[in-house]
Amino acid sequence: MSFAKLLTPASVAVIGASTNPDKAGYAVLNNIITGNFPGPVYPVNPKADEILGKKCYKSLAEIPGEVDCAVIVVKRDQVVPVLKEAIDKGIKAVIVITAGFAETGEEGKKLQREISQIARQAGVTLLGPNCLGLINPVHRFNASFGQAMDDAGHIAFVSQSGALITAIQDIAANNRIGFSLLVSMGNKAALDEVQFLENLRNDDNTRVITAYLEDISRGQDFMRVAERLGKQKPLVILKSGRTQAGARAASSHTGSLAGADAAYDSAFERTGVIRAESIEHLFDVASALAYQPLPAGDRMAIVTNAGGPGIMMSDALELAGLKVAKIDEETSTKLLQILNAAASVHNPVDVLGDANGETYGKAIDILLASDSIDGLVVILTPQKMTDDVGTANEIVRVSKKYKKPVLACFMGANIIAKGVSILRENRIPQYPIPERAAKTMNEMVSYARYKARQLRVVERFAVNRNPVIKILRSYRYRNMFEIGEFDAKAVMKAYNFDVPRGMLATTAGEAVRFANEVGYPLAMKISSPDILHKSDVGGVRIGLASAGAVEDAFELMMLRIKRRMPEAEIRGMLLEKMAMGGKEVILGMKRDPQFGPMLMFGLGGIFVEVLKDVTFSLAPVTAEECLSMIQSVKTYKLLKGVRGEKPVDIDAIVLNLQRMSQLVMDFPEIEEIDINPLKVGQEGDGAVVVDARIILTKELGQ
Amino acid sequence: MSFAKLLTPASVAVIGASTNPDKAGYAVLNNIITGNFPGPVYPVNPKADEILGKKCYKSLAEIPGEVDCAVIVVKRDQVVPVLKEAIDKGIKAVIVITAGFAETGEEGKKLQREISQIARQAGVTLLGPNCLGLINPVHRFNASFGQAMDDAGHIAFVSQSGALITAIQDIAANNRIGFSLLVSMGNKAALDEVQFLENLRNDDNTRVITAYLEDISRGQDFMRVAERLGKQKPLVILKSGRTQAGARAASSHTGSLAGADAAYDSAFERTGVIRAESIEHLFDVASALAYQPLPAGDRMAIVTNAGGPGIMMSDALELAGLKVAKIDEETSTKLLQILNAAASVHNPVDVLGDANGETYGKAIDILLASDSIDGLVVILTPQKMTDDVGTANEIVRVSKKYKKPVLACFMGANIIAKGVSILRENRIPQYPIPERAAKTMNEMVSYARYKARQLRVVERFAVNRNPVIKILRSYRYRNMFEIGEFDAKAVMKAYNFDVPRGMLATTAGEAVRFANEVGYPLAMKISSPDILHKSDVGGVRIGLASAGAVEDAFELMMLRIKRRMPEAEIRGMLLEKMAMGGKEVILGMKRDPQFGPMLMFGLGGIFVEVLKDVTFSLAPVTAEECLSMIQSVKTYKLLKGVRGEKPVDIDAIVLNLQRMSQLVMDFPEIEEIDINPLKVGQEGDGAVVVDARIILTKELGQ
Repeated sequence: MSFAKLLTPASVAVIGASTNPDKAGYAVLNNIITGNFPGPVYPVNPKADEILGKKCYKSLAEIPGEVDCAVIVVKRDQVVPVLKEAIDKGIKAVIVITAGFAETGEEGKKLQREISQIARQAGVTLLGPNCLGLINPVHRFNASFGQAMDDAGHIAFVSQSGALITAIQDIAANNRIGFSLLVSMGNKAALDEVQFLENLRNDDNTRVITAYLEDISRGQDFMRVAERLGKQKPLVILKSGRTQAGARAASSHTGSLAGADAAYDSAFERTGVIRAESIEHLFDVASALAYQPLPAGDRMAIVTNAGGPGIMMSDALELAGLKVAKIDEETSTKLLQILNAAASVHNPVDVLGDANGETYGKAIDILLASDSIDGLVVILTPQKMTDDVGTANEIVRVSKKYKKPVLACFMGANIIAKGVSILRENRIPQYPIPERAAKTMNEMVSYARYKARQLRVVERFAVNRNPVIKILRSYRYRNMFEIGEFDAKAVMKAYNFDVPRGMLATTAGEAVRFANEVGYPLAMKISSPDILHKSDVGGVRIGLASAGAVEDAFELMMLRIKRRMPEAEIRGMLLEKMAMGGKEVILGMKRDPQFGPMLMFGLGGIFVEVLKDVTFSLAPVTAEECLSMIQSVKTYKLLKGVRGEKPVDIDAIVLNLQRMSQLVMDFPEIEEIDINPLKVGQEGDGAVVVDARIILTKELGQ
Repeated sequence: MSFAKLLTPASVAVIGASTNPDKAGYAVLNNIITGNFPGPVYPVNPKADEILGKKCYKSLAEIPGEVDCAVIVVKRDQVVPVLKEAIDKGIKAVIVITAGFAETGEEGKKLQREISQIARQAGVTLLGPNCLGLINPVHRFNASFGQAMDDAGHIAFVSQSGALITAIQDIAANNRIGFSLLVSMGNKAALDEVQFLENLRNDDNTRVITAYLEDISRGQDFMRVAERLGKQKPLVILKSGRTQAGARAASSHTGSLAGADAAYDSAFERTGVIRAESIEHLFDVASALAYQPLPAGDRMAIVTNAGGPGIMMSDALELAGLKVAKIDEETSTKLLQILNAAASVHNPVDVLGDANGETYGKAIDILLASDSIDGLVVILTPQKMTDDVGTANEIVRVSKKYKKPVLACFMGANIIAKGVSILRENRIPQYPIPERAAKTMNEMVSYARYKARQLRVVERFAVNRNPVIKILRSYRYRNMFEIGEFDAKAVMKAYNFDVPRGMLATTAGEAVRFANEVGYPLAMKISSPDILHKSDVGGVRIGLASAGAVEDAFELMMLRIKRRMPEAEIRGMLLEKMAMGGKEVILGMKRDPQFGPMLMFGLGGIFVEVLKDVTFSLAPVTAEECLSMIQSVKTYKLLKGVRGEKPVDIDAIVLNLQRMSQLVMDFPEIEEIDINPLKVGQEGDGAVVVDARIILTKELGQ
């Protein structure tokens, strides 16, 4: 794979270059030439001698020099032969613009598999097919049929939609976003988002990576790469298809099936990915991250020349999750000295309607110098005396003196256009309404926190894998996929979960002997591969407090079950010492098709069933992540104890989640686990698996 | 009061008109003249003979003709004398631009009270002081020191911030929002939002009223007016100061204390007010409501020329609360006939990147004609063959044929600018990202539902007011403001709440006789004005099941309470027949300073205390509103019964909320009520007040 030859080729050929300005084959060539590509450009078209002033070649083979990158814009049926020619020519990077592949049905899918296989075998980097192409403004390489080149900057945009790129180029030109790369991935036959992330990680021109994605097919690879990337530079993603309607639209558009949106949320949170809510939000955040320093904390100051917008900004900052900083006395005193007596030197600092650029500049300088402030938003409304240009210049000048983020919110349009354009030229992020600035500032604070976080360390426990291997194998051997309570608990025990002391008794005598040995009270549950819902058939008795009660229960249950379900294979009765007291919680795991095992936590009973108060996290998890799962349920306070109760053993839940994480990472054939309930005692008393069940996948080979 | 003379005067005088272009007195006069005001304009300034080509008068008295409206732009200390002159001249509408009043401190407050009193006594309509002025583009009356006149349209904007008006004028000019009125209320010394709503209700030029507010001081008047208004035309409000930081900023800016944000939410919901989240959102929604028909339902169709934005729009519509319509067979078939084979005829309808205006037009026509669609969003991304102008023209042409809302989402900037400007000229709302269009459509659907709702009818029950009057009077007479359980229950009983049969026993013998008469089990609670938290001092015993138990409890409690709190005045023991079974809920009321009595509902115990799962509604409430309060708690399902339980008597809770509503409307001296718990039986079994307390206001006169 040669990413350099794709992104920064020394020479490029356009196969299917056209003399017809309506064709993509013309547009691509034209974009490369008018974009001032710094190397030889070779149009290839058997029917032309010259296109756009360049000598045209009949075939790739005819080209005299070396070619780093080939852009293929031929008819669909010509793509395979042309690709082979390119390989023969020794070309290492290929962009297939041509459409008509996987997006069109079975035949197209087959053809797409063919080209990706050919490319892989030849070690060729392949972008597309069915894409708009690639634009690298830094290298002056516009191999797309989109718009003319953008001004170079430090934001990379990787898109699963080509049409979006044109729209964004158009918007970016006005807003001076500044790109280091724009790439349309098309059908992702070979190159996908994971490879772009991997390769842009060390690209010095790229400070922020942004992406529009409709699916992430290699979820676990994505997480591995994104996690490492996120510590170096921020990643902002707009992932569509988050609702049912959106997912339906996506799957009819791309043919791909996206996983659960909760899995994307968990994966993004894990890896510090900022999830954008819209294209606007995506670039709002990216511009700030690319061109402003990260804040050291969440205490924000506001400077404004009007009261109303200052209130709006206060609301917006607090709603976004930030603090409207309390301004220290020293700073207030300094502000008093430079401002009109009617001005407010509290936060928001109101410099009043007649403030000019100089006044703004001084106020900003004083605020940024204060240790009680981590970042600043500057509001300007166009009033009689307002000096948008002077204010913009002062913001640019003063903000450079400090390593704190400064965002601007100039409200208006034509009257403030000059000031706004000064801000944009100087890469001061500018937002037309307070809410967008506030939200952006919050994303910056969150990313700064993520970046400062310790690298995750997933703890591994010493466990006994053998019993698990044996149990799982025995089920798969019998083509059974549901592991009931008794064996599920044996699996749990091997991974050091606390399970109640128990035995499988086949006679009443055995049951009584066990009962006398472990003590009372006991629970008795029917054990049968044919009975899944034990309670429904009267197969559960609890609180058995004496030898007599155990004997009676055993015989009655046997009698009745045999009467009700004569066909059921009864293995015996599971007898267990009952765990007394404690609170019931539920631990679960279900595998997401893209991201793998997703752990679940919630409080038992109505809290899960009625209130759906559960949290998710992708395995493997660290202890901190388990704790955060537990703390994130709304009912967390119930675990900490209310009305004078003592707190439960949170550490024990953490430990159990970690063990479950290890178990499902070790055994990919486990599709689902349900520990319901786990009974958690008071602090230090641990937690006991009261009931559990495991479901195995039917898809995995032996 | 003469609103007409303020909004559409036949003649206007500017007192304090200035020859200095830097002064507001110049700007106001200039705006009136250059705005082509259709009547005589009289500058007043003793030091000038002519300003801006108009003869200048030394004083108001000198003006020969009648003057309808006076704009006062003099120094603060001149405002009172000038106001008096205006009254002498017979002027009925006055705009005070001058600042330096309530916003500056005590002296300013006094002066402000003075001018509002003078105006009130003379029957003069007074706007301001400390305001930007008023702009009526329909009447060509720009009495402000803001920007030049806007193009006339059908949206009125009433603002508590003057600076915002200038910013909005600037934005509106680009977006062709179209105003029927822009008004800056300043300090609201006389005219406030309530009066503007009242007077704009029947203004035919105004289709939508929008407002930026920092407080609503006359909450109940506001609700009365807004409710009636909302059935005629929509009201969209941005109310700032919703967070603690925002409220602090607002109170330091305006000196007013806003009420609880939850009260605003409840008031807005009650009256169908659309609460805007930002200035952008305000005008996004207002433009659609002013210039598009209301949708009959929530089933939305999407037309797009690119897959990605179609997915985004599907997500956005569903997240906003709307349905991405299932397109009926007939419509799909028609679409198939006009679209390329690769197009998607499902929703989103993808007309593909090469669709021209005609194709768009046909698709839109077919979709709008379908009975399975209530509204439409049209997405356009700029691609090679895209025809933004043709598409915009077709949207304008076709949408006129139907009474369904059509919103546009042209994504991009310069390339699509011509198309966008055609949309704007023709008042097709245009949004740069799908999310804003989707949110707007949802507000339209919500407003259409509000408008279709039956007028609210608050039921009144026959009650016995006399015991309540007596009890409240006796407390106020003794200067006591906390009414404990016994008397609170007597109040409840008078309003037909179910209270347990009970008595206040002063001897053990009395207690036992009562117990034998009503039957067991009983609860016994200490009754003392000095003991608020009865349980904390051992003052509650429940489940007393026999005469002996009652006697023992009485004597022990008396003994111990006297030992622990020798100073406490003991009135006796409250004995009550216990209500068995049922679920505990809490009903409450607390008076909001702006909006009056706010009712509260929640499930008892941890649901209120830990999960804070409560809902609010302003009294008086209808039965439907009570039901909606109950249904809105997250734990509502618990009342409907889980795990085979029977549902509780929801109707009884509704009835009790209605009774509480009536009680607190009848007695404004009740500051707070707490019924905790109300025990609700199964359907048909009613609900019993187990404990209650009432707090009286200290502020009300006798």
